[in-house]
Amino acid sequence: MVTDRNIPSVCVSLTEREREVILRECASVLEGKPDIVEWRADYFVGIRNHDDVISMLGELRKELKAIPLMFTLRSPQEGGNQRLELSEIEKLALYDSVCASGLIEYADFEIEQSPEALKHVRELCRRHGVKLILSYHDFASTPDMNNIVERCKYAEQAGADVAKVAVMPHTLEDVLTLLQATLAAKREIGIPLITISMGALGALSRTCGWMFGSCLTFASGVRSSAPGQVPIEDVQAMIHLMQKAFSGEQSGGQSS
Amino acid sequence: MVTDRNIPSVCVSLTEREREVILRECASVLEGKPDIVEWRADYFVGIRNHDDVISMLGELRKELKAIPLMFTLRSPQEGGNQRLELSEIEKLALYDSVCASGLIEYADFEIEQSPEALKHVRELCRRHGVKLILSYHDFASTPDMNNIVERCKYAEQAGADVAKVAVMPHTLEDVLTLLQATLAAKREIGIPLITISMGALGALSRTCGWMFGSCLTFASGVRSSAPGQVPIEDVQAMIHLMQKAFSGEQSGGQSS
Repeated sequence: MVTDRNIPSVCVSLTEREREVILRECASVLEGKPDIVEWRADYFVGIRNHDDVISMLGELRKELKAIPLMFTLRSPQEGGNQRLELSEIEKLALYDSVCASGLIEYADFEIEQSPEALKHVRELCRRHGVKLILSYHDFASTPDMNNIVERCKYAEQAGADVAKVAVMPHTLEDVLTLLQATLAAKREIGIPLITISMGALGALSRTCGWMFGSCLTFASGVRSSAPGQVPIEDVQAMIHLMQKAFSGEQSGGQSS
Repeated sequence: MVTDRNIPSVCVSLTEREREVILRECASVLEGKPDIVEWRADYFVGIRNHDDVISMLGELRKELKAIPLMFTLRSPQEGGNQRLELSEIEKLALYDSVCASGLIEYADFEIEQSPEALKHVRELCRRHGVKLILSYHDFASTPDMNNIVERCKYAEQAGADVAKVAVMPHTLEDVLTLLQATLAAKREIGIPLITISMGALGALSRTCGWMFGSCLTFASGVRSSAPGQVPIEDVQAMIHLMQKAFSGEQSGGQSS
């Protein structure tokens, strides 16, 4: 996910419902050359049938070739498909099948689950060589800095390979709080971090969050999968420009 | 200087020493389509001769056509030409001639001068319809947020039309402090602000500081006039991309 210090991965999500449409979405997304593709399986009409899910993953795997695939089942409370409600047991059974399939590289699992569920998924991922992203979302507000840092630490303690925190800003100060928390969390934990300040207000975190330690940014492909997502070509251009500036290629001179 | 809310002006500085070279520098800078051009007169070999200065300004004025011209005499202590040391009296006499010439739109004057000098320049600018930028530079460090806000307020109290604060970061937290101070100062003062976190570390302030309330950014043209300056075409591209993202043109969707 993090190929080099300060070079973030750009991920695009697939959010269509039907097999054929998802495959067309995937082909279109690939034109933007994402580093990772996330399948937001909560939108898939066949989500309750494990065979359909595995078969869909197999088709995506073929399309993606060497590009890593992230499997995500977002719950309605954390911004997922509002029409899908799976019990913890159903969810775990699905992750069992998906992780055992050998078709995905990353599994996103929401951290607000029982400690037993987290432990189960942690062991499952380890057994099948899948990297575990433990994710936390707050669509209402931005917690204070310490709170965000604590959530990252908790994800590490729970065995995450990557910690993800996405929060909603109401002010630009909130966006700065998220960036500050990212810097602070980077110093305190040993796993990669994904941090996002959502909405148009948080656009800076999507394009420049990597400077503060966020290893991955979600960009929009065919359509946005989250408020504030920026088109992949714009995110890639911004990362390139800021990397040039940030690495000081242009520095020197005499004043301000 | 601020043509529209959240659309920053991009300024490029002229830092050459000799008349002919400055004119060539100017022609090259204009290719980048800057919104404002700053003449860093402290580098000019003829700086001690008022006639040479006015004649140089006249030639620049002709080249710039409708583009506003900013006259700046940076002192060695604030990052200016280390070989030039003018007394306060010599400096004021020069500003007298320059402001009276009718050839400039903006005069940058360092705020760390006697209150009498500030008052003199304030009245001079008012008399000749020149906008006064009172500037403060700290090449050693980034003061705390309140200190930066106080400096902006002091510039307003001293009669500035625009307050400028450029400080040096040692950490990314320092860069965030500058952005936070910009937000806070914007709420407390009624004049436009220019804030800069210098060096490669501060590149974000040069490309995205406008989102937080900085109305102008200095970009490099032929050569950089300050540590961390980003080439004008890169700054313009970043502003364009971030404006699109920040205005929420792409927002919508379902998750993070």
